[in-house]
Amino acid sequence: DFAATGNANGRVSAPYTIYKGKALLSISPVLPTFVKMDSDIGGLKVNRRGSMMLTFCPAIGERKYDWEQRQKFALSPTEVGSLISMGAHDASEFFHDPSMKSSNAGQLSKKLCIKALDGGNGYMISLTVTNNILKSNERFNIPVTTAEFAVLKTACSFALPHIMGWDRLTNQSPKGIKGSPSKVNPKQHFDLEWDR
Amino acid sequence: DFAATGNANGRVSAPYTIYKGKALLSISPVLPTFVKMDSDIGGLKVNRRGSMMLTFCPAIGERKYDWEQRQKFALSPTEVGSLISMGAHDASEFFHDPSMKSSNAGQLSKKLCIKALDGGNGYMISLTVTNNILKSNERFNIPVTTAEFAVLKTACSFALPHIMGWDRLTNQSPKGIKGSPSKVNPKQHFDLEWDR
Amino acid sequence: DFAATGNANGRVSAPYTIYKGKALLSISPVLPTFVKMDSDIGGLKVNRRGSMMLTFCPAIGERKYDWEQRQKFALSPTEVGSLISMGAHDASEFFHDPSMKSSNAGQLSKKLCIKALDGGNGYMISLTVTNNILKSNERFNIPVTTAEFAVLKTACSFALPHIMGWDRLTNQSPKGIKGSPSKVNPKQHFDLEWDR
Amino acid sequence: DFAATGNANGRVSAPYTIYKGKALLSISPVLPTFVKMDSDIGGLKVNRRGSMMLTFCPAIGERKYDWEQRQKFALSPTEVGSLISMGAHDASEFFHDPSMKSSNAGQLSKKLCIKALDGGNGYMISLTVTNNILKSNERFNIPVTTAEFAVLKTACSFALPHIMGWDRLTNQSPKGIKGSPSKVNPKQHFDLEWDR
Repeated sequence: DFAATGNANGRVSAPYTIYKGKALLSISPVLPTFVKMDSDIGGLKVNRRGSMMLTFCPAIGERKYDWEQRQKFALSPTEVGSLISMGAHDASEFFHDPSMKSSNAGQLSKKLCIKALDGGNGYMISLTVTNNILKSNERFNIPVTTAEFAVLKTACSFALPHIMGWDRLTNQSPKGIKGSPSKVNPKQHFDLEWDR
Repeated sequence: DFAATGNANGRVSAPYTIYKGKALLSISPVLPTFVKMDSDIGGLKVNRRGSMMLTFCPAIGERKYDWEQRQKFALSPTEVGSLISMGAHDASEFFHDPSMKSSNAGQLSKKLCIKALDGGNGYMISLTVTNNILKSNERFNIPVTTAEFAVLKTACSFALPHIMGWDRLTNQSPKGIKGSPSKVNPKQHFDLEWDR
Repeated sequence: DFAATGNANGRVSAPYTIYKGKALLSISPVLPTFVKMDSDIGGLKVNRRGSMMLTFCPAIGERKYDWEQRQKFALSPTEVGSLISMGAHDASEFFHDPSMKSSNAGQLSKKLCIKALDGGNGYMISLTVTNNILKSNERFNIPVTTAEFAVLKTACSFALPHIMGWDRLTNQSPKGIKGSPSKVNPKQHFDLEWDR
Repeated sequence: DFAATGNANGRVSAPYTIYKGKALLSISPVLPTFVKMDSDIGGLKVNRRGSMMLTFCPAIGERKYDWEQRQKFALSPTEVGSLISMGAHDASEFFHDPSMKSSNAGQLSKKLCIKALDGGNGYMISLTVTNNILKSNERFNIPVTTAEFAVLKTACSFALPHIMGWDRLTNQSPKGIKGSPSKVNPKQHFDLEWDR
């Protein structure tokens, strides 16, 4: 055994996984990374923004899935906003091309569709990965129940401020604490917005 | 008195309990447990997943309940998703058999029903525990008001990311912080999803 | 100046206050207190449950309020559940008597009413404090806008798990972390609910 | 590299930024500041309340924005309450004048409008800054999609208790923990509200 604050330093794997007959879908937040700011006052800014990582694996037997054939899709904060604002009859579609706006645009692409099932009791989540160089096309379909989608929405709503890096804004030691109360200026809350 | 960071090490009991005439229902989150991962990089993965534990005790007098006769039901994250997505006129049913898919299947089972009351002002939560060996059958019925159910939904929504282990993803020390800003690659957020 | 982890030990006052012409309403969570459990394994249990404290002060001039004449009302977790589940046209009423079911019952009482305004754009929050010994009757009326009520609901939803003591369940060091992965029993999540 | 608990002391910049053709809108919580209370028991109270800071910058080329020409608007907790309670067809308007009720009233003012687009698929967020001394009038219009607005609402709901200072109420070491359970008074939760 070891103390948790010791050598188990930080990396925790706790995906939410939905196992279905033909494939599984596993979801996990990816936190942003930070770099020091250039300014004199120091502090940190976001270097790589966070995301919700969706991983799809095809089934190769009963409750057996092939991790080697996995495909991933990273939802940005705004795409997470789409997901959590979906109603019982809505659909969302996200399109990613790693070479977007370059000369290689269109060679590789991924499309994620989330579509309410008829009758409103669940959703179909589909990922299509297209490689126009290899002429390959992979597709995953995961039927998701209303309960599973409620977990997704609740967990994504919880994770959203964290992948945006906003949880850091509150984990810090208090600023502006003085030894005695300064005279309170009733208009002080205007200062920040009028001071450039 | 003692310092809380000292010997009161971590175990806190704070169930939300609903006392009714014939029985009580007590609800408390059970956090997941973790084990070290096999991989070289270390880190932790979930060993036993968390749950919301519902405990029912029969009344044996006015505001007296028999803890010895308690029965428990552990809601999985997806079952919690069912509960928190229930509308004012919905019903949910969960069935647990500890010997499911083995030769002992059907000997013991528990069924939890959550059903909106007619008129939409509250719910009936019922647990039935069946033991076919002892030919016994226990049943608990807890009428729950709209206010009590709102507490259940809010508290379960709060607890869901914690029983999934996602709170750990944010309690860790920062990763990827470098001494000077690296050049930011605008496509870097695609890296993670295209890199297997 | 002083370090916040030093002598400013913990007590923070940050009420949300709604100032109106005839009175103010100030709201602040009161956290539960804990005691050590009797059992050998130690740990903590809730001693006094938490609440949302509502404080009313009458106006005695323009934006001047008399703190000496304040009256308080402590919403229990279930009463908070009532408040946060209120729709735009609902009403709630809470009745407190410190001598309930004793021979002094009815001498002192407090009644809190929250009632949607006609037209659905806001609420009236009223407190009536009755003292039948002194033959006194005090009443406070606070008209609350939809925006102010949204702050109340969001802040009370945030505070609810904290006044229930559930935030403690997650602030603890990891349990059950072992040096190497134990064999995983797929039915292990049933253990807790079948083991009395 | 450096340890995050070391010299990167607390200041984290992680705005949520919406880039549009003619301007960008960047949103970030501003935490409250605290001062020591006068009372003997010590503790902290809010000195300057927190806010959600909205920053608008005009575009001066393709995906180029002029930070020097930025204008800011600080939403108070109650104004955040307005924003997060907006439905798909609602509108909100906020008016700030730093010299309100003084002899300089009306010289400078800012007006923020949030208005649902026809058809319910998104919002227009507009800031107008008027300077009657310089006879200047600046205006920013940011069309916001439903997904982006969902991020705003979720992130603002997350941030609201933090800008109110309520997250501090739970980050503290336990109070009232005694070495042995005191006799529990069933009416004890009334004590706080009846004791002035």
